[in-house]
Amino acid sequence: MLVLYLSTLLCASGAVALFPDCVNGPLKNNTICNTSASPVDRAKALISLYTLEEKINATGSTAPGVPRLGIPPYEWWSEGLHGIAGPFTNFSDEGDYSYSTSFPQPITMGAAFDDQLITEVATVISTEARAFNNANRTGLDFWTPNINPFRDPRWGRGQETPGEDAFHLSSYVHALINGLQGDPSDQYKRVVATCKHYAGYDIESWNGNYRYQFDAQISQQDMVEYYLPPFQSCARDSNVGAFMCSYNAVNGVPTCADPYLLQTILREHWGWTNEEQWVTSDCDAVQNVYLPHQWSSTREQAAADSLLAGTDVDCGTYMPNHLPAAFAQGLVNETVLDQALVRQYSSLIRLGWFDPPEHQPYRQLDFSAVATNASQRLAYKAAIEGIVLLKNDGLLPLPLDSSTPLGLFGEWANATEQLLGNYFGNPTYFHGPLWAAQQLNTTVHYARGVGGQGDPTTNSWLSVWPAADASDVIIYIGGIDNNVEAEGMDRVSLAWSGAQLDMIGQLASYGKPMIVVQMGGGQIDSSPIVNNPNISALLWGGYPGQDGGVAILDIIRGKAAPAGRLPLTQYPASYINEVPMTDMALRPGPNNPGRTYKWYTGTAVFEFGHGLHYTNFSASVNSEFEESYDISDLVSTCEGGNEKYSDRCSFTTSPIQVEVTNTGNTTSDYVTLAYLSGSFGPEPYPTKSLVAYQRLFSIAGGSSSIATLNLTLGSLARVDEKGNKVLYPGEYSLLIDNQPLTSVNFTLTGEEAVIEEWPQPPKNRTRKGVSGFEKYFVGGYGSQQAPL
Amino acid sequence: MLVLYLSTLLCASGAVALFPDCVNGPLKNNTICNTSASPVDRAKALISLYTLEEKINATGSTAPGVPRLGIPPYEWWSEGLHGIAGPFTNFSDEGDYSYSTSFPQPITMGAAFDDQLITEVATVISTEARAFNNANRTGLDFWTPNINPFRDPRWGRGQETPGEDAFHLSSYVHALINGLQGDPSDQYKRVVATCKHYAGYDIESWNGNYRYQFDAQISQQDMVEYYLPPFQSCARDSNVGAFMCSYNAVNGVPTCADPYLLQTILREHWGWTNEEQWVTSDCDAVQNVYLPHQWSSTREQAAADSLLAGTDVDCGTYMPNHLPAAFAQGLVNETVLDQALVRQYSSLIRLGWFDPPEHQPYRQLDFSAVATNASQRLAYKAAIEGIVLLKNDGLLPLPLDSSTPLGLFGEWANATEQLLGNYFGNPTYFHGPLWAAQQLNTTVHYARGVGGQGDPTTNSWLSVWPAADASDVIIYIGGIDNNVEAEGMDRVSLAWSGAQLDMIGQLASYGKPMIVVQMGGGQIDSSPIVNNPNISALLWGGYPGQDGGVAILDIIRGKAAPAGRLPLTQYPASYINEVPMTDMALRPGPNNPGRTYKWYTGTAVFEFGHGLHYTNFSASVNSEFEESYDISDLVSTCEGGNEKYSDRCSFTTSPIQVEVTNTGNTTSDYVTLAYLSGSFGPEPYPTKSLVAYQRLFSIAGGSSSIATLNLTLGSLARVDEKGNKVLYPGEYSLLIDNQPLTSVNFTLTGEEAVIEEWPQPPKNRTRKGVSGFEKYFVGGYGSQQAPL
Repeated sequence: MLVLYLSTLLCASGAVALFPDCVNGPLKNNTICNTSASPVDRAKALISLYTLEEKINATGSTAPGVPRLGIPPYEWWSEGLHGIAGPFTNFSDEGDYSYSTSFPQPITMGAAFDDQLITEVATVISTEARAFNNANRTGLDFWTPNINPFRDPRWGRGQETPGEDAFHLSSYVHALINGLQGDPSDQYKRVVATCKHYAGYDIESWNGNYRYQFDAQISQQDMVEYYLPPFQSCARDSNVGAFMCSYNAVNGVPTCADPYLLQTILREHWGWTNEEQWVTSDCDAVQNVYLPHQWSSTREQAAADSLLAGTDVDCGTYMPNHLPAAFAQGLVNETVLDQALVRQYSSLIRLGWFDPPEHQPYRQLDFSAVATNASQRLAYKAAIEGIVLLKNDGLLPLPLDSSTPLGLFGEWANATEQLLGNYFGNPTYFHGPLWAAQQLNTTVHYARGVGGQGDPTTNSWLSVWPAADASDVIIYIGGIDNNVEAEGMDRVSLAWSGAQLDMIGQLASYGKPMIVVQMGGGQIDSSPIVNNPNISALLWGGYPGQDGGVAILDIIRGKAAPAGRLPLTQYPASYINEVPMTDMALRPGPNNPGRTYKWYTGTAVFEFGHGLHYTNFSASVNSEFEESYDISDLVSTCEGGNEKYSDRCSFTTSPIQVEVTNTGNTTSDYVTLAYLSGSFGPEPYPTKSLVAYQRLFSIAGGSSSIATLNLTLGSLARVDEKGNKVLYPGEYSLLIDNQPLTSVNFTLTGEEAVIEEWPQPPKNRTRKGVSGFEKYFVGGYGSQQAPL
Repeated sequence: MLVLYLSTLLCASGAVALFPDCVNGPLKNNTICNTSASPVDRAKALISLYTLEEKINATGSTAPGVPRLGIPPYEWWSEGLHGIAGPFTNFSDEGDYSYSTSFPQPITMGAAFDDQLITEVATVISTEARAFNNANRTGLDFWTPNINPFRDPRWGRGQETPGEDAFHLSSYVHALINGLQGDPSDQYKRVVATCKHYAGYDIESWNGNYRYQFDAQISQQDMVEYYLPPFQSCARDSNVGAFMCSYNAVNGVPTCADPYLLQTILREHWGWTNEEQWVTSDCDAVQNVYLPHQWSSTREQAAADSLLAGTDVDCGTYMPNHLPAAFAQGLVNETVLDQALVRQYSSLIRLGWFDPPEHQPYRQLDFSAVATNASQRLAYKAAIEGIVLLKNDGLLPLPLDSSTPLGLFGEWANATEQLLGNYFGNPTYFHGPLWAAQQLNTTVHYARGVGGQGDPTTNSWLSVWPAADASDVIIYIGGIDNNVEAEGMDRVSLAWSGAQLDMIGQLASYGKPMIVVQMGGGQIDSSPIVNNPNISALLWGGYPGQDGGVAILDIIRGKAAPAGRLPLTQYPASYINEVPMTDMALRPGPNNPGRTYKWYTGTAVFEFGHGLHYTNFSASVNSEFEESYDISDLVSTCEGGNEKYSDRCSFTTSPIQVEVTNTGNTTSDYVTLAYLSGSFGPEPYPTKSLVAYQRLFSIAGGSSSIATLNLTLGSLARVDEKGNKVLYPGEYSLLIDNQPLTSVNFTLTGEEAVIEEWPQPPKNRTRKGVSGFEKYFVGGYGSQQAPL
């Protein structure tokens, strides 16, 4: 006899989002159903009815609900990185609800440097999420964005982020959360966003260092300066509804069991104390607190430690499985459990879960709100804005008309699912480059040719030569994809494969007009393409989404003008030889040439912010600057205002206006990048720091447009070794663009001033260890991982 | 208009093996069709008719043939690692030819230490290959075995090899080639075997070191002592029909372009000079000679260099594409091209390709010869023989009858395709552990539970607890599989995942009889399982093939007794921290704790050769040994005989007889492992060296059996730093088994004597380089790769 035990996940097919019945259900007279009571009172009234067992059951991400009270099951886990997606979004097989809008990956949207675009995209995602939720096809809590800075070029999930710069990410994520959640003053949230992965998470599996066991050693200076700003933006400045603690440990402590990160920093220092704000673990980071982290010496202690630290939802089953024993052993009390549940239910209340649908506009949405023409156009626009022109000898823009037979080559040329990167749902369509080329009035010769890193065989090359012979223009579209950069898989090379470069070289040797399009989220060292005089142009497309092929072709043929900027450094291939991925330091040091454009001491192939146009621009700063500013004046002016956080005080009395003029002929967007550089504070100084950006649109030749940039005291501040933000006297330069079009110099004078005191971590926190595992989970040779 | 260029491989569907028509075809009166002419004369007669273009076309692995002469296309690439398989074996959808026999992976068959078994298995494979070839469903040239020693435990393809010991592999491969090719004196070969990957190939993709670009730095001592013995066995001692040169370079030179390896060593030193013996490149190693190796500065030079070095077949299209230009540039002449073609066609002649089928017994085989009952029993026997009992507190053997509800857990418990490892065809059936348990008269509770390294989530754990509650015996079957060890993917951890160990620990805490079965080819540090007193037994199963589940259950329940031995070291998990995979040295040194049981200075979790039984054995050496032997006497006796190669001369006048007695009650096989240890030659001394082995069968309790072991001068010799084999005076011990059951001591006296002079590589060989790529293809941090 065979007895099969299958883990049927609750609501696995279809029934994702039922709502409690506050009209006729058992709770109709309970305060939870009283829409005029406060969310916290409503939540407390509900859980006061729960037994301990029912409360514990509610700690898992697939919550079973409480049938006797009419509380339906609820799945906390939905995904929406660049469109609704994920294991718990249920697309129908055909017709309505069989697709939605799939935008470019964040790394491509990051290249747009257009915060308004991000809000619009996020608004579409939350609208489509509500439509699917109303059809019982997804939840209301979206475990997005991934807002860890893209620190090391090998990171397999860097594609999910907007790039490497902490300021850029902070600004981007603010715009995103507004779109996902709606205005904080609205009665109902559109959906709840979840800033992840808090904190220091940016390694998947590098040389034996699995994300589940990695202990990131990060200085307080780097934490405040680099790793945490996007999370501060989420918590302090954007009222995000949820956080996700990460798999890794930071400085010895698994983040989901770390009250310093979850309580002292997140809730106390950043004031993230609305009752409806909750923390989920990554899946199944609470188990990892036991093994492989060995922070807690028993399973029940791991569950208790996580709950006590401030993890309110366990993605997985470890809390519901092991909290009963933890309670029996007195490791945790019901107060902290109640607190977690108050947060959970307050959040659902703010989403209208218990309220009459007829009063909620989001509850009226149906499939007519999904994949609208406007949404499709927005997905196309996002791709256009995110594509970056890296090299152009003047060939582009190149009309692709019937007189020029076009050759398309490379494993991305006929991309479909590749266009989407990871965390994708069902897009409305897959418009790859080949599809896009077929819509043109020209002859298209297509041969896939060489595959990716893993395919060196030349049998597939045979089809390339006759296609190249027949073409007048050659476009090679390749690079990397989720076969080499993915969740769970970091890259091990920054080079194009030898086979791809060989084929590109052979195609270039035809001497025909040739364009290479570099795809994938992480950068690849394209210096061989840059250095090949037979290749006229190089574009980077990242993962451009459902209309990405059309966007690429439209840029090439000049239907649209490129204005994206690289949101990350393109390092030389040798970079992987110079620093272990596990070295978290940003500043250069032994075995570390420095990270990001701020600190990298080598020569980038293409710098952060690089991006060419089909025209030229000039710029001038129209605002008046003083020659010098007294630090104590700046601080006292700030303290005299009503800004709670000094780093948010404006530096200048009014925003800085930069006038940008298109000095060429082609109408084009222009991304205004404003950097600060100079000598202030302790050495080493960063090369420069992005402090503001604004994308200007459709500037015609000979015309001008004004960028309005808000510099704050935070823009000027540097971070000391304790993590404090400090204004230092010294020489400052405001630079507009990478090769500055204009600049302004000024000085700060007087005594240095701390504008933010950073809470220091408690000392003497050591893991308990699990017997027998002292040297078991180790990283590979050269990892420089902290000894376990 | 869209023009699609598809690389339709010749014969991709079905028509793999047509034969030339020597009865009515255009060549019927040519010497090629004269069966009484010599193969070389026949081959020369044929190619004398070829144009240069036709000759060049014949250098690719998918040879188009010469239609005007009635020479059909021929696909050189078939696979048969543990059963016929691969891209060019065409299984039908159902019925005849829809399946064949799938044996365990070599790593599991290696654990059997049974050369006769290997010959029998290989005979089945070549028989089934001929049946499929006669049905036009596969070729006659099989690119197997992979006989690189399993040097580093991280190697993703170690599963394809019989293990880590060079002597073991040499013996195994001799037995294998006999079965694949048949007796060398036979008129027709059964099939042609291909020893790969020559040489020094055992890295897929470790920390940025791709196999296509890796340059293995190997001392002459390590080459002769470790990397080359299996290839010497293939070429010199087993008359293998083909070799495959590898992706990597050795000491700067890509092997496919290295005349030192392909001509000086392989053909001249080892006397591999039969006209029908040929070398193919790995796919597409000739392209790699250009990029990423940059050995040759142009593509045509890479094609010419490879052909000139002795690569006769190019797996791929690089030679056919680029040899025309190489000829035009005078880089190569027709003589060397003719030589390659003579080798190719002589080989086909020896396979009977041109000869009347009616005179060839292999040409009469049809599907009735495939997957016979005897073959299925052999696959089962191979699995039984290869399973290794690592730990047993006395629980095993354990009858699994109706009184003991059985719980089966882990992601291997219901294995199907996992059983086969890689390079598999269609097996006759998939008998995994769950299937096997269902055939027993017992209640089986099955829950998959935790996944592999990549799946930490606990949602799937919920099903485990009720199944464990209901079981009286718990069997967990897990470990690793081709998700973490594969072609193109080396492992980055030797540890069980934290999630698996957590679940194993929770299952053990039930206190029920519990058995763990560790699966996968590479070893995993099982010390947490060894150290858990609640886990009674640990087995290793590797990839046990189509009947692997039955074999595992039959061993557990005592229907069969385990006698396999670990063919590789089980290192502690921390080993990956101690040595970069790219350090090819066997002996310990800086950042290298030594490799294999011979040189590893740490403490293995389980040693090479470890394997428990259900009984006990004693042993005694029945042959007389002298106390000492004079080296000059040994050498002169050898030189006075008719053995061409001194290392093959017998050491003792007659083979050594070891009497093995089963001192317990359970009938069992016993693998007699004979090691030499002692102090002779330069320090450091290896711990010991395997010099002979023999599996004895079904020794009943109280009974004895005799192992007959042939020690040679090669057994005694050591290898000096130049690669010479030397007999040294000193103290020798012959040890029977790991914990020696008996031993014999003797000395060698007199002057040391070189019994084999090793040809030294030419000096001053440097790669030409390709402009712009000097520092482009680099390994990652800590690789210690030779600077490019």
